[in-house]
Amino acid sequence: MRKRIVSARKFIKPSFTALVEKKRDGGEFSDEEVRFIVDSILDEEMPEYIQSALAMAVFFQGMSAQETAIFAEEMMLSGEVIDLTNIARPKIDKYSTGGVGDKTTLVLGPLAAACGVVMPTMNGVDEEYGISNLAKLSSIPGFNPVLDLKDFKKQLKKVGCTFVAQDPEIAPVDGIFYKMRLQTGTIPCLPLITGSVLSRKLAEGAEGLVIDVKWGNGSFITDVEQAKQLARSITRVGRSMKRRCVALVTDMNQPLGDTVGTGLEIQEAIELLHGRGPEDLKELVLKLGMEIVRLAGVAGSTLSAKQTVQRHLEDGSAFEKFKEMVAAQGGDTSVLDEPEKFPKAKHIRKLPAPKRGYVHTINAGMIADGVVRLATLKNGKFDPSVGVSEIKKVGTQVKQGEPLMMIHYNDEAKMEEALEYLKGAYRLAPKRPNPPELVVERVA
Amino acid sequence: MRKRIVSARKFIKPSFTALVEKKRDGGEFSDEEVRFIVDSILDEEMPEYIQSALAMAVFFQGMSAQETAIFAEEMMLSGEVIDLTNIARPKIDKYSTGGVGDKTTLVLGPLAAACGVVMPTMNGVDEEYGISNLAKLSSIPGFNPVLDLKDFKKQLKKVGCTFVAQDPEIAPVDGIFYKMRLQTGTIPCLPLITGSVLSRKLAEGAEGLVIDVKWGNGSFITDVEQAKQLARSITRVGRSMKRRCVALVTDMNQPLGDTVGTGLEIQEAIELLHGRGPEDLKELVLKLGMEIVRLAGVAGSTLSAKQTVQRHLEDGSAFEKFKEMVAAQGGDTSVLDEPEKFPKAKHIRKLPAPKRGYVHTINAGMIADGVVRLATLKNGKFDPSVGVSEIKKVGTQVKQGEPLMMIHYNDEAKMEEALEYLKGAYRLAPKRPNPPELVVERVA
Repeated sequence: MRKRIVSARKFIKPSFTALVEKKRDGGEFSDEEVRFIVDSILDEEMPEYIQSALAMAVFFQGMSAQETAIFAEEMMLSGEVIDLTNIARPKIDKYSTGGVGDKTTLVLGPLAAACGVVMPTMNGVDEEYGISNLAKLSSIPGFNPVLDLKDFKKQLKKVGCTFVAQDPEIAPVDGIFYKMRLQTGTIPCLPLITGSVLSRKLAEGAEGLVIDVKWGNGSFITDVEQAKQLARSITRVGRSMKRRCVALVTDMNQPLGDTVGTGLEIQEAIELLHGRGPEDLKELVLKLGMEIVRLAGVAGSTLSAKQTVQRHLEDGSAFEKFKEMVAAQGGDTSVLDEPEKFPKAKHIRKLPAPKRGYVHTINAGMIADGVVRLATLKNGKFDPSVGVSEIKKVGTQVKQGEPLMMIHYNDEAKMEEALEYLKGAYRLAPKRPNPPELVVERVA
Repeated sequence: MRKRIVSARKFIKPSFTALVEKKRDGGEFSDEEVRFIVDSILDEEMPEYIQSALAMAVFFQGMSAQETAIFAEEMMLSGEVIDLTNIARPKIDKYSTGGVGDKTTLVLGPLAAACGVVMPTMNGVDEEYGISNLAKLSSIPGFNPVLDLKDFKKQLKKVGCTFVAQDPEIAPVDGIFYKMRLQTGTIPCLPLITGSVLSRKLAEGAEGLVIDVKWGNGSFITDVEQAKQLARSITRVGRSMKRRCVALVTDMNQPLGDTVGTGLEIQEAIELLHGRGPEDLKELVLKLGMEIVRLAGVAGSTLSAKQTVQRHLEDGSAFEKFKEMVAAQGGDTSVLDEPEKFPKAKHIRKLPAPKRGYVHTINAGMIADGVVRLATLKNGKFDPSVGVSEIKKVGTQVKQGEPLMMIHYNDEAKMEEALEYLKGAYRLAPKRPNPPELVVERVA
C-alpha cells in the first residue's frame, strides 16, 4: 500500500460524532478530516452507523470540490495505485454510468489500443445496468475476466487494453463505503459518486479519463440536469486532481444498438469493430473514440481524430486488438472470426406490435429487466445464447403484428415472464416523435 | 410484554433500504411501516447503519404528527406499559428537557402527592444537564434510586411519588435508538425527541403530562423558537395519543435558584418544600404545580390551583411526602429534618467580582461544567458536599471583589480547574440588564 506523506502540522482527531454533526450542519471538512475519515474506514475503526449517518448528511449537505477531490484522492491511496510509467504510450481510461445495450466500452478498449493509446479498464459494479461487460465477454468460451495486477500491467504493456473485474486491492475504502451506500439510499449523491469513480479510475494508472454520463429510463440517472451536474462534477474534480477529463452526457431512453443479451451484444460489438453496425452505436463509438485520441494527444484536430478512429475501425486493426485481448485472457477467438459459431437459442419469436404507428418511447430499463429474466440461469449466470435482437428504435414506423424485436429464448416460462416487461417497454403513437439527441452535452 | 392488536390488512414488508429512501425523499411512513421499523429494532433485525441513516433522513425531512404519534406508541409498546388503574387518584407525570440548578422535579413529585395526584416519575438520561436528580438524591445517605416495577407501583399506591432511574423494561426500543442517536448527531430532531419522550413517559402509566421545555445556554436547546416548536410538538402528539398535555417554555440562561451541586441542591429543595427559597424557583414550582393540579382535575380555576399548591407547600404536607418517599426508598430522613447534618465541604471560598457592575449574563452551561469538574470523584460519582451556592443572578449589582458565588470544595486542584469555568460564566456590565422572562410561553 502506498504511503502518503503525512502533514507535519498537528491534527487533533475529532470524535466521529463531531464529524457527523459538522456535516449535518453544512460544514466543510478540512483535508485532514477527510483523511481521518478514510483512514478510519480502512482501519475498521469507524462504526458502520457512523459511515451511514455521514453519507446521509453528505446526501443533504453536499461536499465542496476540494472536499470531494481529497476524498477521491484518499480513497485512491487507501489501496494499490497502479504505476504504468514504464509504458511509454498515453494512458486514457473510460468510465460509463451504465446503460442498456451499451457495447461502446467493448469497442473502445481495442480501438484505443489500435490507435496507440493504453486503456487500463477495470469494470466497476456501478458501470452496469442489468448485464455487465464482463458477463457479455463471458459468452466467449474460455474468457477469463480475473487478472492479478502483475498480469494486468503485463497485458496493458503488450496488448494495450484489458477487460477485467475491479481488483479488490484498488481503492478498498470505496469498496467498503459503496457497499454501505447501496443499502442506505446514499448512492444518488453527486460528490459521493464523483469520489467513488475517481478513486478507482485514477488508481488504474490513467493520465486522462473520458466519461459517458447517461441519462434516461435505462440509467440510474433519470434527470438530464442531474446527468449534466455529474458530468461537471467528475470533470472538475478530476482536473483538480491533475488529470485530463472530458465527459459526454448521452441519451439512455432506449437501448443502444439493436441487441440486448450477452452473446448477441458481443456479436454486435464485432460488427462495430469492423466499422459496421447500428447508427446510434457507431456515432457514440466515434464520438467517445475521438475524445480518447484527442485526450491522449494522438490526434490534434477534430478532423484528424475522426480520421484516426475511422481508419482503425475500417482497416480491421481495432478488431485485431480485440482478438489479441481475448486471446491474452484465455478466450476462444475462433468465435470472433466466425460469429455464427456463437451458441444459438432454441427458439426465436417476434414481439408483435399491438397496433400500427410509430415507436414513441421505449423504456430501456424494462427491456433490461426483461432480458435479465429471460437469460438468468439457476446458477445466477446468464445464458449466452439468450436475449433480444432487431430492436425497433424510437421513431420507427410499424404495422400491426410487425415485430418490435426478436426474442431468443430456451425456456418457455422465462419467456412468458420476460414478455410482460418487453411488451410494457413499448409505447406506440400515431405521430412520428422527435428523434432523441444522442449526445446532449460535452463537458471539457 | 403487551401485545398490540395486529391489523388484519395485509402488509408487505418493505426492504430497509426502501424505507430509508422513502424518508430521504420526504415520504411519510404508513402506520404499518413505523410499526415494522420499531419491531425490526426490537428484534435486532435492523442493522445499526440503517437506523442511523433513517435517523439522519428524519433529521432533514421530519415526520408528520401522525408518524410521530405512531412512532411513540410503538416504542412505548415495545416494552412494559405500567398499569396504574388500580390507583384511584389522578396520575400526572412531568418531563423536563433538563437544566442547571433545577430542583423543581424534586419538589413537584412530593407536592403533587400531597395534593392527591400520583406522579410516576422515572428519570431519563435526557432530563439531565450536568447533574441528574438521582445524583442529587444520592447525597441523602441510604437513598436507593433503583426499584423494580412491582415496588415502583407499590410505592406509587402508598406514597404517590417516586424518584427512580429509567427502568430498562420501559420502551426498550427508545433505549436502543437513543444510544445510537447520541453518537450520530441525531438528538436535536423534534419528532425524534417527541417520540422518545412520549414513549417513555406514557409507558409510566400517567394520564397526563406536564412538560418543561427549557431554552438557553444551560439547555440543549439554545434557540427559543426551537423550544416553542418542541413544546408544541410534544403536546400535539401527546394529545393525539389521548393524553392531557401542557407545556411551559422556560428560561435556562442562568442557573435556577442559588445553588448547583448535589447536597446543596437537596438543601435548597427542602427550603422550597417548606414554601421558602429563591424567587425564581418558587415561581416555577408554583406555575408547574398549578398545571399539575389542574391537569389532574384536583383544582378547577387558576385561583384554586394556586391556593392548593401554596397550601401544601406552606402546611408542610409536601415536605412530609418528600420524607415519606425518601424513607420508602431507604434514605436517612434525619438529614432532611436537620439539613445542617448534610456533609460539608472542607473549604468555602468566594468567586470575586473582577469589577463593579451588574451581572449581565451568566452561562449556565459553563457553571454546570465547572461544578461537574469540582465535584466528580475518581469513581465517577459526585462528592455530595461540593458545589456552588449564593449564586448572584442576572441583574444583581455587585462591587468589585464582592462574591459572585461561594465555592464549596475539597480538592484544591479541582477547584482551580473549575474556577476557569465559573469565572468564564459571568459577564458584568455597567448597566442593569432587562430581567429574563421565566415563563416564555404556555402551550396547552
